[in-house]
Amino acid sequence: MDPIPPQLDPPSRLLMGPGPSPVHPRVLAALSAPTVGHLDPYFLAIMDETRTLLQRLFGTTSALSFPVSGTGSAGMEACLANAVEPGDRVVIAQNGVFGGRMADMVERLGGDLVRVEVPFGQAIDPERVRAAIANKPTKLVGIVHAETSTGVAQELQEIAQVAHEVEALLLADCVTSLGGIPVALDTWGVDLAYAGTQKCLSCPPGLAPVSFSQRAIEAIRTRRHKVASWYLDATLLLNYWSGERVYHHTAPVNMVYGLREALRVVMQEGLAQVYARHQLHHRALVAGLEAMGLRMLVSPPLRLPQLNTVEVPEGVDDVWLRRTLLDDFNIEIGGGLGAFKGKALRIGLMGHGARREHVVTLLSALESVLGAAGVNVPGGAGVHAANQVWHAAASR
Amino acid sequence: MDPIPPQLDPPSRLLMGPGPSPVHPRVLAALSAPTVGHLDPYFLAIMDETRTLLQRLFGTTSALSFPVSGTGSAGMEACLANAVEPGDRVVIAQNGVFGGRMADMVERLGGDLVRVEVPFGQAIDPERVRAAIANKPTKLVGIVHAETSTGVAQELQEIAQVAHEVEALLLADCVTSLGGIPVALDTWGVDLAYAGTQKCLSCPPGLAPVSFSQRAIEAIRTRRHKVASWYLDATLLLNYWSGERVYHHTAPVNMVYGLREALRVVMQEGLAQVYARHQLHHRALVAGLEAMGLRMLVSPPLRLPQLNTVEVPEGVDDVWLRRTLLDDFNIEIGGGLGAFKGKALRIGLMGHGARREHVVTLLSALESVLGAAGVNVPGGAGVHAANQVWHAAASR
Repeated sequence: MDPIPPQLDPPSRLLMGPGPSPVHPRVLAALSAPTVGHLDPYFLAIMDETRTLLQRLFGTTSALSFPVSGTGSAGMEACLANAVEPGDRVVIAQNGVFGGRMADMVERLGGDLVRVEVPFGQAIDPERVRAAIANKPTKLVGIVHAETSTGVAQELQEIAQVAHEVEALLLADCVTSLGGIPVALDTWGVDLAYAGTQKCLSCPPGLAPVSFSQRAIEAIRTRRHKVASWYLDATLLLNYWSGERVYHHTAPVNMVYGLREALRVVMQEGLAQVYARHQLHHRALVAGLEAMGLRMLVSPPLRLPQLNTVEVPEGVDDVWLRRTLLDDFNIEIGGGLGAFKGKALRIGLMGHGARREHVVTLLSALESVLGAAGVNVPGGAGVHAANQVWHAAASR
Repeated sequence: MDPIPPQLDPPSRLLMGPGPSPVHPRVLAALSAPTVGHLDPYFLAIMDETRTLLQRLFGTTSALSFPVSGTGSAGMEACLANAVEPGDRVVIAQNGVFGGRMADMVERLGGDLVRVEVPFGQAIDPERVRAAIANKPTKLVGIVHAETSTGVAQELQEIAQVAHEVEALLLADCVTSLGGIPVALDTWGVDLAYAGTQKCLSCPPGLAPVSFSQRAIEAIRTRRHKVASWYLDATLLLNYWSGERVYHHTAPVNMVYGLREALRVVMQEGLAQVYARHQLHHRALVAGLEAMGLRMLVSPPLRLPQLNTVEVPEGVDDVWLRRTLLDDFNIEIGGGLGAFKGKALRIGLMGHGARREHVVTLLSALESVLGAAGVNVPGGAGVHAANQVWHAAASR
């Protein structure tokens, strides 16, 4: 018989990849609070508070905001499986891996898929979406607010207008945006949105916050067929998360504790301060990277502060570079996905991870590792350039 | 704007309902260990160890054993969504709520559903399954090993033989059995099984251990259509959990830490000891309940030690009784579901919860609450009867 594996003893990684991101200590502590029942009056109150906090973060008055009991991709599937029926025409805008994942799901659900594809690293032009809709009855338009595979921010308000011209629902992937840049579902007209806990919320992976507008829930309630997934059926989930509290599945109680604490941390800092902090440290990071001779892959107006894609320097093996950062410095950064595989490094500054000390640690470690790879990096240039950004901000 | 809700401060409940059950302190501590990336070499080793531990607990040589990133019902859906294609004939044996849930899922997946229904509180006779199969080509037979809604244990080996006569796969719900009574998938011939973490594994809800036999995975690999659920597609999940480690979704890292620790706790005690402990405290509990004049709803040979269903005494409102136990004693027990609603109390003795001190606490609290409800309970009779069971066991 196999021996029993040893006691858990994870290394202390500095998580600066595309997620999971550094977990706030208060969130880790909340995860190990005493478990109560999923129908305990105390837990029902925790659920209500979590929903209210999510509404504020999503920028919506819709009370149909709650965490799905799965990771971010379960949130994507919850939105699509509820909104899309077999035969429905669905337009998916795809400028990275996660738009591609949406398209895969739509096909599996029997939707009539129309793709709008643009190269990795670019944003989606609303006119491209209008052309794909082509004035035909369309059930849903899906798009990614913050493409985790490329680091591109997507404008959503014009896309929503284009979708609503044919009464299509707009679905937005907010996995990497929520908590890192402003999200305003109601103002923009987003009908369905999903996120993850492991990006800018400083919480481990495991839950997928979602939000449905009244229009979305009406569309779901008037479906012709039952939702193929019992686990993700929104009407059943909402009977548990609000209203009658009908038992559906056993909610992941401790993960909900963690999410609630993560949302409290964000609200106590204040949304404006949170977004400004991400922007500031992003500017410092980029200044440092560019001073070291590295090149950003996304043009400045489209850059996400929380997910920075950098070109892999000529002659450097990206797998070796990332492994060396991990082994020698305990720092995790991400590699490229899809069209960016082998070409991009992905550096996350997410939530509790978006801190000055992490920027200087990473810049210094990169200087060391790139030097070992034979890249000519001017000594100290990265940290010096980052400092200039912080000093300029402080003196304003 | 709404105020920020207060600091998390859950009450210390004694969880003696149908789950979640009391979480082992080592599992709670593991949940708050430092998060690492889902592709970190350390986490890949943790995944392998978790798979090996699950194999041992499931009683299988199949390495296709891993936790699905959702709760127990996600495990149910993962098994059915992968094994069942539209038009497939599927026989579901239903003697409680969870067999009913399987049937609901089969219909949503477009399966040709044949139900075998027996009343709540009874087991399924293999001959009833054989008659339902009726020698017709059948893709899958689904059955519940430990019905959480009734407390009935189901024999599986004969059912497996019946299913295999027509080359159907056997699917078993092991949500409440895994870790509480022996599970021997290979010996019995079970092809697909799923469980939950929040029952006899002494872990919070959030993951669904599953296991697929080679026959099951062959059936999945030769499907005519893609699995409707991308999130639960077993071939994609297995590419991440074993073999090539291809990124699928971001695994719930800290929940996996918790499950691994829960499995270590079980293996360190030893499986034989764990099962014997459940049996012993179950016998003590039943002796105590019967001495207090309460009546068990399941006949002795079919009783699950970990889930005890008791008739609600004449003239007592079960909602009031459960609420009073919760408010006055911080003890959670469960009410009836489905045909047992209002008629049954469900008392769990699961994992870390199956302990002598919990039995005496519950029997004493029940004596107090039933007395307040005007039921004539002989003072101290429950604890006295339980003690006799323990003393007899100790003197053997």
